[in-house]
Parts: sequence; C-alpha cells; structure tokens
Amino acid sequence: MASSKKFQAPRGTRDFYPADMAVRRYIEGVWRTASINHGFDEVEGPTIEHIDLYTHKSGPGIVNELFQVYSGKDEQQIAAIRAGDDAPYALRPEFTPTLARMVVAKAAQLPKPIKWFAIPGHYRAERPQRGRLREFIQWNVDYVGGEDDPARADAEVIACAVGALEKFGLGPGDVKVHVFDRRIAESRAKASGVEGDRFLSLLWLIDNMGKLSDEQIRAEVEKHGITQKDVLSFQEHFRRAKALSASGQPMEQVGAEIGLSKELVANVAQVMNNLGGIGLGPWLTFDPDIVRGLAYYTGTVFEIIAEGERAVAGGGRYDRLIESFGGPSMPACGFGMGDVVLGLLLHDKGLLPEEVYMQPLRPHVFVIAASDDTAAKLPAIVARLRKAGLHVRHSYRSTRNVGKLLGEAGKAFARTAIILGEELAAGRVALKDLDGGEQREVALDELETVLRQLLDAQERAGV
Amino acid sequence: MASSKKFQAPRGTRDFYPADMAVRRYIEGVWRTASINHGFDEVEGPTIEHIDLYTHKSGPGIVNELFQVYSGKDEQQIAAIRAGDDAPYALRPEFTPTLARMVVAKAAQLPKPIKWFAIPGHYRAERPQRGRLREFIQWNVDYVGGEDDPARADAEVIACAVGALEKFGLGPGDVKVHVFDRRIAESRAKASGVEGDRFLSLLWLIDNMGKLSDEQIRAEVEKHGITQKDVLSFQEHFRRAKALSASGQPMEQVGAEIGLSKELVANVAQVMNNLGGIGLGPWLTFDPDIVRGLAYYTGTVFEIIAEGERAVAGGGRYDRLIESFGGPSMPACGFGMGDVVLGLLLHDKGLLPEEVYMQPLRPHVFVIAASDDTAAKLPAIVARLRKAGLHVRHSYRSTRNVGKLLGEAGKAFARTAIILGEELAAGRVALKDLDGGEQREVALDELETVLRQLLDAQERAGV
Repeated sequence: MASSKKFQAPRGTRDFYPADMAVRRYIEGVWRTASINHGFDEVEGPTIEHIDLYTHKSGPGIVNELFQVYSGKDEQQIAAIRAGDDAPYALRPEFTPTLARMVVAKAAQLPKPIKWFAIPGHYRAERPQRGRLREFIQWNVDYVGGEDDPARADAEVIACAVGALEKFGLGPGDVKVHVFDRRIAESRAKASGVEGDRFLSLLWLIDNMGKLSDEQIRAEVEKHGITQKDVLSFQEHFRRAKALSASGQPMEQVGAEIGLSKELVANVAQVMNNLGGIGLGPWLTFDPDIVRGLAYYTGTVFEIIAEGERAVAGGGRYDRLIESFGGPSMPACGFGMGDVVLGLLLHDKGLLPEEVYMQPLRPHVFVIAASDDTAAKLPAIVARLRKAGLHVRHSYRSTRNVGKLLGEAGKAFARTAIILGEELAAGRVALKDLDGGEQREVALDELETVLRQLLDAQERAGV
Repeated sequence: MASSKKFQAPRGTRDFYPADMAVRRYIEGVWRTASINHGFDEVEGPTIEHIDLYTHKSGPGIVNELFQVYSGKDEQQIAAIRAGDDAPYALRPEFTPTLARMVVAKAAQLPKPIKWFAIPGHYRAERPQRGRLREFIQWNVDYVGGEDDPARADAEVIACAVGALEKFGLGPGDVKVHVFDRRIAESRAKASGVEGDRFLSLLWLIDNMGKLSDEQIRAEVEKHGITQKDVLSFQEHFRRAKALSASGQPMEQVGAEIGLSKELVANVAQVMNNLGGIGLGPWLTFDPDIVRGLAYYTGTVFEIIAEGERAVAGGGRYDRLIESFGGPSMPACGFGMGDVVLGLLLHDKGLLPEEVYMQPLRPHVFVIAASDDTAAKLPAIVARLRKAGLHVRHSYRSTRNVGKLLGEAGKAFARTAIILGEELAAGRVALKDLDGGEQREVALDELETVLRQLLDAQERAGV
C-alpha cells in the first residue's frame, strides 16, 4: 500500500473541514428551524433512484445530465451498459420525483395537507462554475393536497423561505421574491399565436436567455420556430407591469393597467396580498421575466433573487405532477434553495462571521492541567463533566504557563475554563468565565452546579 | 406524462417518512452531541470519490462491492466503461479513505490531535438482509496524530461511543465493548507458524466464520492454506482468557494466566484501565474472537456487540494508513457505528418510544380558529408567533367543535394551544397548557410574553 500518490476529491465536489462544516450545519440549521416553525415535517429518500423516475418526469434528454450508477457486483447490469444501455440508477439531481413517488405510495393514508421539507444532497453532471457545483445541498419545501385555497398554500411556502432568509440576516433590500403566474404567461403567448410545445420552448428560452450560447439558442429556435423576437415581444408586453409593481403598486391595479382580466390576475394578487397581510409585502415584486423553464409548473411561479447573482431559490405550483406519477389528483407547490448560491451571497454580505456559525459549537468548558500531578486527574474530571452532558475540551499538554493554555481555550471559543492547579489537592479548582473574565475557586463536588449557574447566566445575557 | 406506473425506491434503500426521519434525526442528534461533547469536530466529504481511492486501500477486489458512478454527459467515460473499464467514480462504501485523503491534503496545517467525526451516507452493492442495507448512515469518529500515548486516544474514542450508547438508554447489560489487540493475534499466529498473507487470511476467516457459506470458506482455504482447524486452535488458545476477562479479572492477570508477555498485554490493559478510571469498566471485555478482518489495523481492535446481533460498532488503531495515502507517518484510531443494527437494537429494547424521538419536534403552539370570523385573523397571529421564533402549527379548518381541534393539537404533541374565539374581538385569546391542562385568557399584546413564561416553566419541569 505504500505510495506517495496524492488523491483528490472529484471535480465539483467539496471537502468540508471543520470550519466549512460548521457553516454548512449553520445554514442547514436555519433552514430546518424555519421549516419546523412553519409546520413542515422532515423527510428523506434514497440518494440513488431508478433512472426512469427522472426520465418519466423530464424526458429521455435528462440522462445526459445525470450521474449514472450501477452495481459493480451485478453482471447483468454491467452487460447491459456495455451493450449501450443507460445505467439502472442515477444520483438524484432534484428531490421532487422522490417526493412524488413517496406521496403516491401512501397518498390515501397521509394526513392532509402534506407539508414536507428535506435537505438532501443533489448531483448534476455539468461543468462546475460560480454558484454551480456537481454535488450540492438543497432545501426542498413542499405543500401537497388538502388545500381549497391554493394562494394560501403558495403564500405559506414563500413565507417559510422568507422566514429563513430573515434569520440569515437578509432583508428585502438584499433579495426580492419575484412572482409570476404561468397562466398569465400562457394567455399572453396564446394571444401571439404561441401554444403547446412552442409555448414551453418560449418559456425555456426566456428562462435561459442569459445562460445559453448563441449556438444553443439557434438549435432551440430551429426546433420549435420560436425566435429571439418572440422572447423580446413577450418581455416588452410586461415591461410596464414589472416597473409598476417594483414601484409598489398593488397587483390588482398593475393588472388593470396592462389589460389583464381580473380572473387572470386574481391568483397572483391573492398570493401577494396574503404575504402583505403578514408583513412580507416589501419582499415581493411581480416579475414576468420569471417563468421557470420546467414543464410541470401550472400556476404561481417564483424566484428569490439577489442583484447580480443566480437565483437563490425557485419554485411554484405543480398541480398535475402527483397524478402523472400514478397518484390521485392533488394540488401542490414548493421550492428549492441550494446551499451554493446562498453561501456566496451570505459571504458577500458579511453575514457569515465566525461568531455566528461557531455559536452552537462553543465548548461549555475547557479543562487545563497546570502541572503533571494534576494532569493525571484531568481525564476523570473531563469524563465526569461530559457525562453531565457538557461539551468539554481540554489541553493535551500540562504546563505552568496557564496563560498559553487559556489562549488555546479562547481559540476554541470556550465559554469557561477550569484550571487544575495546586488547590486540587484540597479538592478545589479555579473556574474562569471566559466571556465575563471573572475567576473564582470552586469545590470539586459543587463543580457541576456552579458551572450550570454560570452557563445559564451567560445564556440569559445572550452570549 | 400521464401514466399509472408505480415507482419504487431501489432495493436496499429507504424512504424516510416524517416519523422515520424523526427517529433518524434523534439517532444522529445523540451521535453528534456525544461527538461534540467529547471534543470531536464534524467533517464531511463527497458522496462519490475516484474509484482508485478505494482500490488503493482495499485492493482491486473491492470494485465488485461498490456502486460505480459515471457522468452521463462524458462520452469518454461512457466509451471506457463500454470497452470494459470500471467506472471512474464510486459511491463511498466507508468514510476512512476520504478521511485519510483530507488529512493528507492538509497534514501540516491541521492542529493536532485531529479529532473528527462524520455522519455520512454509505453505499454497498451487496444483497440486503437483516441489519444490512445498500444505503445506510454511519457515524465515524477518528483521532489522528498528536498523541504519544495511543492507549489514551483509543480510550477516548471508545468513551465517545459509550457516551452515545448511554444517552440512548443502553447499559453494559445490553451491549459490551469487546477489545483485543492485533499484535497479540499476530504473536499467537506466528507461534503457530502463520505469518504475512496467511495471517491476514486467518483474521479474515475468524472475522467472517459465522457469515460465510461453506463454498466461500473452501475458496479462501485453498488460496492461503489456512484451515478451519487453524481458526479453532487460535480461538481455543484464548478461550480461558476470554472467560477470565468476562468474569471481571483485570487484564494484567488475564494476560499472565495465559502466558502473554507483559509487553504484549500492556496496551490493551492500559486502554481498559483508562476506561475503568472514568467508570466504564463494566462495559468492557477482552475478546480474542474480535480480530476485525481489514488489513489496516495495527493495534487495539474492538467491536460493540449486543447478544445475538451483528456488531453495533467496530474500530481500532490504524497507524500506517495516513502514510499509505501519501501523508506523513501519523498514529490514528477510530470507529464506525451504522444506523441499521443500532436502530434494530434500540427498537427491540423498547428504547425508541414516540415521546423520545418526537420530543425535539414538539410544536410550541397550536393555533385554533373557533369560528370563520376568527379564522380570517389566524394567519397574521400564526405569522407573528413564527417571527418570534416559535414552532407554530394551526388548524386548517375552523369549527365550533374546539374539542376536536384540541385533539388535533394533542396528536401533533403541541405544548400549548391558542384558541381564537369570541374574545378575539376584545383583543383577547384563550391559552391552554396542553401538558398541565390549565387554560387562561390572555391579551393579544401580551401573548408572546405569557407564552414564553409558560414554555420556560414547562422546560424547567422537564416536559
């Protein structure tokens, strides 16, 4: 096995060293708390799924964007791939097909509404670039069934997303929720004679315009006959509405001013009013440039966008998807928020200082041995405090230079330090409050009690 | 897309519905807290690695046990596989190679000792059976470098494992830590003329005896000439030592009674004494049947075993692995504990009641609208409480049958209920303590304050 060969992580994946992992857990923690506070239950599915789960939803073209998976033990699978087949499994590129499969399997028994969130890893076989990796974490929030009032459900998932963004310290000056409705897009396209597959092609072009090469655009244009002019004319039609909404006009008026029927504007207006009613008005803007490329959206669509970045999150209503996977007809809406763009944004806004993401990882105690004699007694004291449920770190060397070891304790963000000095022979130790600075002597049998009081006091003081 | 085709999860993988996920998060939470309290930092790596990371550690035979992965976009990768090559990536079957790679990449900068834990998904292309799935979660705890006293590091990782088991409610009557030392095995084998590859073959046979078919054993025997008689003679040699340790004799004496030199027994005795010194003696037993099949162990080896089940955890010292991955020479030890066997054990022992795993998911408040009038005001009150950081659920229908809705609140394990009744017109609501049963009227502007007091009182009462 001897070798000096250096191994590396696959391109587009990440190694999470302790500080990276602390950031990741902080982000996941904010997502999880927002989800739970908003009444969503956590679920998870397999990391690999049968590949036809994805082709069923997205068509055969998707296999080129997937990491394909097969069992190295299965001769039949290997033979089929060598003969030209796709692999039987794929690493999940998104959670929605798994969610649909899970809902369909227990559609009758599950209490409605089904409010689920998940924070799984996702995998895409594409070229890594800023904001886009091959393996990333994505927060998925979905609201399925049990709702006669879709605008209320749409508002609830958006409120959950905004709840998390607020916790991160972002405000409506940093990101906006851009809202549109697929049915308004459809109606406008129809009026210009664009329907069916050509409509989907138009949406796809609008959604991808900035991201595509000229050649890709030409290829799409040739396939469905949609031209750049169609895209521009669609966007031009809504330019004034977009500006009016951005300047704060209520949606009903915006709709009236560009000649949208009351019926057509009712849903998006209601979603925005519901959110306005709970104080989230300043986060919202009506934005017909946000159409979402995927075929399965049926109503409200939205993206959460920070100036100059890829979307932080995107989602919408997909009322026919559960049925298409063999389930009953069930209304549904949801969104996904990845960790990569969000992480870049939080970093750029200075919202990821060490104090924030290290807060939940602060040791309660750092135990220091000030001599070789007391070092022998350190393990038992450390074990006792850990047994009491405390996060305990300790020095690995003993030295009379206590100041140096207190420096180590500080670098570990410890809340308190216990110094085992000469007083230990008399059953006493020094306890130092590393936030307040005070130091006192404590009898060993009272250590847990005094420590708890000190930690409680720190917590009440909000440190 | 219309279809009534039913999709299923790949065999040997799991769908985690909310209750399953609550159990998983509870288990992960206990693992994480034990790790952090014992001073380990969390890390993570990619789900896929270059396949040669695994063949480097375990030899070319490993590829048959791996889920192999390739990019569906990469023509070269596809062509190579069709031509007979293995895929370029694999789903990780274990975390140690990733850990070794990460340590090697930053060996000079990382503060020592490197104490890391991880709770990643793992994947094995084998036939699913009781206690063994193709996708499972495994807690990995490793202690690398910075330690002149390996027995102290070995004891520290074992103490961390036992700390978690205690939190789950398990005791030394349920599971035992079976400890052995590779060097004792090596010395005994050498005395019987078994060395080198034949020694590894012997270990592998001891480790797998109960699990292998006659045919597999015959194949191994033919390869290295180790027979069942060699295995039995090895085990027979230590039978008395095993019994003496099980009856509570100190390791030094056990060693003396079966003629082991003081030097040979010193390490395992020291590990056991270190653990005994922090009160974990009753968990330990010296067990020469525990050899661990893998080639890379160099000293202490251990498994945590419950009667009649596969091992809950296993690990040991691997002092040459970091070097073999191209890093400096660094001592190391660690263990892995999977979620599948542990979950079965906790379930069988009655240690997974709903109250336990639902505890962290209990809603702070369940808001009930007792009439259509008050239902209109529900969203704003719910949003206000969520903004205050509370976990809030609510009824989705309004009804005068408040008892039925309180039943819903109880089923959701809510701590309190707020009932929006006629008093709402006067700015007041009913607040019910669902643990204590008391109900009182509260002014809306004081709601957060009174609620916080009630929740604090519940927490102090330990509910």
